[in-house]
Amino acid sequence: MIIEMLSTGDEVLQGDIVDTNAAWAGQQLAERGLKFSRRQTVADDLATLVEVMDECCQRADWLLVNGGLGPTSDDLSAEAAGKLLGVPLELNQQWVANMQQWYRQKQREMPPSNLKQAMLPQGAELIDNPVGTACGFIITHHQCHVLFTPGVPSEFKHMLSHSWLPRLSDGDSTRVKRFFAFGLSESGLAQQLADIELPAGVRLGFRAARPSIEVKVFSQKVLTPEIKRVYELIRAQLKEQLFSEDNGNWAEFVQHKMIAKGLKLTCAESCTGGMLASQLVSVPGSSAYFERGFVTYTNQAKVQMLGVSSQLLEHYGAVSVEVAQAMAKGALAHSEADLALSITGIAGPDGGSDDKPVGTVCFALATAQSCFTQRLLLTGRTRQAIRETAAATALDMLRRYLNEQPIWGDYDLIRRIQTEQS
Amino acid sequence: MIIEMLSTGDEVLQGDIVDTNAAWAGQQLAERGLKFSRRQTVADDLATLVEVMDECCQRADWLLVNGGLGPTSDDLSAEAAGKLLGVPLELNQQWVANMQQWYRQKQREMPPSNLKQAMLPQGAELIDNPVGTACGFIITHHQCHVLFTPGVPSEFKHMLSHSWLPRLSDGDSTRVKRFFAFGLSESGLAQQLADIELPAGVRLGFRAARPSIEVKVFSQKVLTPEIKRVYELIRAQLKEQLFSEDNGNWAEFVQHKMIAKGLKLTCAESCTGGMLASQLVSVPGSSAYFERGFVTYTNQAKVQMLGVSSQLLEHYGAVSVEVAQAMAKGALAHSEADLALSITGIAGPDGGSDDKPVGTVCFALATAQSCFTQRLLLTGRTRQAIRETAAATALDMLRRYLNEQPIWGDYDLIRRIQTEQS
Repeated sequence: MIIEMLSTGDEVLQGDIVDTNAAWAGQQLAERGLKFSRRQTVADDLATLVEVMDECCQRADWLLVNGGLGPTSDDLSAEAAGKLLGVPLELNQQWVANMQQWYRQKQREMPPSNLKQAMLPQGAELIDNPVGTACGFIITHHQCHVLFTPGVPSEFKHMLSHSWLPRLSDGDSTRVKRFFAFGLSESGLAQQLADIELPAGVRLGFRAARPSIEVKVFSQKVLTPEIKRVYELIRAQLKEQLFSEDNGNWAEFVQHKMIAKGLKLTCAESCTGGMLASQLVSVPGSSAYFERGFVTYTNQAKVQMLGVSSQLLEHYGAVSVEVAQAMAKGALAHSEADLALSITGIAGPDGGSDDKPVGTVCFALATAQSCFTQRLLLTGRTRQAIRETAAATALDMLRRYLNEQPIWGDYDLIRRIQTEQS
Repeated sequence: MIIEMLSTGDEVLQGDIVDTNAAWAGQQLAERGLKFSRRQTVADDLATLVEVMDECCQRADWLLVNGGLGPTSDDLSAEAAGKLLGVPLELNQQWVANMQQWYRQKQREMPPSNLKQAMLPQGAELIDNPVGTACGFIITHHQCHVLFTPGVPSEFKHMLSHSWLPRLSDGDSTRVKRFFAFGLSESGLAQQLADIELPAGVRLGFRAARPSIEVKVFSQKVLTPEIKRVYELIRAQLKEQLFSEDNGNWAEFVQHKMIAKGLKLTCAESCTGGMLASQLVSVPGSSAYFERGFVTYTNQAKVQMLGVSSQLLEHYGAVSVEVAQAMAKGALAHSEADLALSITGIAGPDGGSDDKPVGTVCFALATAQSCFTQRLLLTGRTRQAIRETAAATALDMLRRYLNEQPIWGDYDLIRRIQTEQS
């Protein structure tokens, strides 16, 4: 089955909106063994819309059109569909009633401009949207089915999940198995796995997605001993570098381990400023292990919230393994947690020195018995990337501790300056 | 000038990577009065790549190709470029030397697989990449210049900024003025502005980008009194609903105001779990006003870190205006800040009740003199969206306070249950 996607709108083309809908739809298809053969984005221009839709319909079995169903004058998708088929638009009374009810439930008046959202090409099949005022619809042109969907991500996802994906058949059925690592380069990882002999029909794909790196094994759907052996060889080669399999949500992975061990976590963050805590709390059920977080952005906060000594801050500076250690131990002492992570660093763009350039970040993991600290150099990265990599590094330390693996990862993308263990 | 973009790679097409490069490039062009006329994404398939490039070259003056320059076997862009021109690939010695130096500086050995990255189509113009091992290159086909760029965002952005955007002329020069609001629907906002008479050549665009909404005024480059009058009418209509102009980074906007007034901020977060603090700290220079943050995810943390009374928690529940108020006042008392924001809510998917469904969130803004609290209902949203909207709401309260405007926004997308002021 040939499936194409057409994203519409100046704001997508000009980059005011990042097209996460397209990525999501691609993932949904991949999970069903299907894929887009091509994706396009065009501007809000009637003639171009009609022309490109016509081109796509000549190639594809299904065309997924996204966006342009809103109530405003730059929403042109329904009009383009009408022109493509050479039919007029008609007011769909069923959808008008639906919108009126939607507004009644919210105790609001329906703006008259919303009526435009019920104008569909004659003969189109109405597709319900229970979470918004833009209905979808399906037309057929050159034997290609065209589904028009709203641009709002929650509405788009709901419509695809309920009204489109179930219609599609199972397709050719590819299996994708994923392995996630951290701190490795794409070429370094490819090199590590280069000696694995792949059976016919099996191939590897690599993806560097800050801050993780992913190896994908593509194969046929039916799992054979040969394919399982490839998985085993990858595990054996990556050893403790392997962060997780299948699930790229590391916070979820760590949460599962922490809850299984009955441990509670706290964290003390300086340069990441709550990013690590927020990532952990983004997973439902995190209250079962995440106890509290300290965002100690100033020296005063480190002293008052965590009991870090002023002398230590003065002598070693806020970005030092000594202060990282004191932060983690202080967080443990000032909470009910069993484990504490701390992060203190220079995220830039200013604030660096010869001795401690921008990207210098110190980490500690404290338990009741011991404390592991390290100083890394995350240079050549933006402020945001330094903070993201720092949060991921702290998670990687915790993951290694929980797995009883070496705490210091063999990262080829990150330089380690110093380690301490007490 | 006709400019198209071609993103390559299974991982982009299948949605494993969200194409932020395309969005960024679109924004860069828009700022220069230029735009993509079309964007496409195709898979890592040699024949398709060559076919689509050929199509694009027949329409465009510039084609920007992104991805497929890595060292692994699924990186096919250079090979496709060679096939398109009918020329062989040659080892570019200049780039080999460059890569060798790159690895020497990092005190690492160059993996032999990297040599592939120096294989360029005969006659191609080498484009430098000082931040990675994938060089870019330019070829010309059907009078269309084709620039090949690496997929890694930092490398892509660097190459465009330094080697491509400066080459492009000024184009037809459109001016875009942006107004940002919060808590309003697209149709509600369009309705509010519907009576503004637009001079010829001026049009409005609307963009709902969670959690903000944006009005864009498109016009000619030269600012006339008529265009300025449209800006004034929008300001007059939106009044205090207008969060900011031109800058959609609200944390930056708030930082500017806080520093100008010499005020310090703290925040106490439950369901957002550090998200608000992390957003504030993402802006360079935030240490000048952001003092510390409390991530009080458990009741015990609220009691111990903020001095919220156990009786209050027991009587009203953790999600209540009373507890939000106690959290904000406690944060103020336990910090050196002048203003405190607090957030406590039910982000779901579980934990809701009839009285307090998922999406119930309470907020407080405490000053030395007074405390403003409100309880909102952010229903019909995912856990992530509830948390994002909650963080934005708290920022909106702070922005309104700093501007001496009404604290309670007239949000048409959010239901307000309760307000208190003491």
